[in-house]
Amino acid sequence: MQIAIGLYPGFTALDAIGPYQVLTLLPDAEVVLCAAQKGDLADDVGLLHLDITHTFDEVATPGMLLVPGGFITRRLARDRDPIIDWVTRVHQHTTYTTSVCTGALLLGAAGILDGLDATTHWCAYDELARSGATPTERRVVQQGKVWTAAGVSAGIDLALTLVADMHGKEVAQAIQLAIEYDPQPPFDSGAPSKAPAEILDLVRGASQAKVAAVLAKSEAVPQRRP
Amino acid sequence: MQIAIGLYPGFTALDAIGPYQVLTLLPDAEVVLCAAQKGDLADDVGLLHLDITHTFDEVATPGMLLVPGGFITRRLARDRDPIIDWVTRVHQHTTYTTSVCTGALLLGAAGILDGLDATTHWCAYDELARSGATPTERRVVQQGKVWTAAGVSAGIDLALTLVADMHGKEVAQAIQLAIEYDPQPPFDSGAPSKAPAEILDLVRGASQAKVAAVLAKSEAVPQRRP
Repeated sequence: MQIAIGLYPGFTALDAIGPYQVLTLLPDAEVVLCAAQKGDLADDVGLLHLDITHTFDEVATPGMLLVPGGFITRRLARDRDPIIDWVTRVHQHTTYTTSVCTGALLLGAAGILDGLDATTHWCAYDELARSGATPTERRVVQQGKVWTAAGVSAGIDLALTLVADMHGKEVAQAIQLAIEYDPQPPFDSGAPSKAPAEILDLVRGASQAKVAAVLAKSEAVPQRRP
Repeated sequence: MQIAIGLYPGFTALDAIGPYQVLTLLPDAEVVLCAAQKGDLADDVGLLHLDITHTFDEVATPGMLLVPGGFITRRLARDRDPIIDWVTRVHQHTTYTTSVCTGALLLGAAGILDGLDATTHWCAYDELARSGATPTERRVVQQGKVWTAAGVSAGIDLALTLVADMHGKEVAQAIQLAIEYDPQPPFDSGAPSKAPAEILDLVRGASQAKVAAVLAKSEAVPQRRP
């Protein structure tokens, strides 16, 4: 199966690399990192520069689509960025259409989530609802062939769940052991229902400021290198 | 604080990107991705190509060093790759010297782990012991300024623990919430003591075959692109 991870300048690195690490361990999968243009593509920090070898047009019928998130997805959705047309077209052919974090807003802009339960980063439930989805505070939400995951790190749980669905429990367990995914966070504040109120307010405020800044800018963020 | 993530061709992507995602959210940290050479650097899958902007020589006195793992670290350690000299030099100046997964074998080759408790990917305990360390089946092991983490995904737990040590519990909790790190693996097979015996044998066998293949090759893996 071909697995297309659809990228754009300003994606969040772990959203993509968590599932990438799991899915590239599948013996029979061909993972492709693709974007609107070949060449340099930077993440939302602006530090991680990937060299992209496949354009969206070259990846027309993947068996699985995975769209990572990033603050900029709010603007890509608002401005009908070309990635949305690609997602719309590719979705016709997929066996699995999936997102991590605010990648769900791009699925939503493509009309894929209308009437479905879905999840995204907890800061983006309102934006998700505007696409006709019912935001759901769960780690991974499956609706037929459409699977959405919560924020950033949830892509690892999504990918292992997808592997089990495709290849059975044993393959997923083997990959989990290979990446020693026995998580032991030092704190229990990784979900809005678990974090202390003042931490929740702090992170929500920082997120809202970042969203406002991203929506106010008209140029691509971050800049493309030659 | 400058945080140097020391890379080499054949590193495992999530080993580096897990901590990267956490540490780049610190307001006062300057994260630098560096390697022996600038330009193209590929991961162990050969799909993820990074454009590296800083050489090791340009990152001489970071406050924190973080070394990710990869199967190839066994060969880098055996062949005394130049990264080991860099790790040795940089360690004199750090406040934190850290590794994820088999990045510990490079700390070991630099003489840093001699006489210390340490951890690494569970498949590499024997190699770790040869550097004078006592392998320890824990997620994160601290010995003074030397912190080692277990395999691949353990880098996220390491980074959050380091953030708490540097900046306090609240900052770590805020970052944990920002990356919605509320892990819910679909299975409980992420550690050798938890996985079913046949899964453990399967993954150990695959790892041993991969190690043998990596040690038998003399060229860099994977190839560098122009």
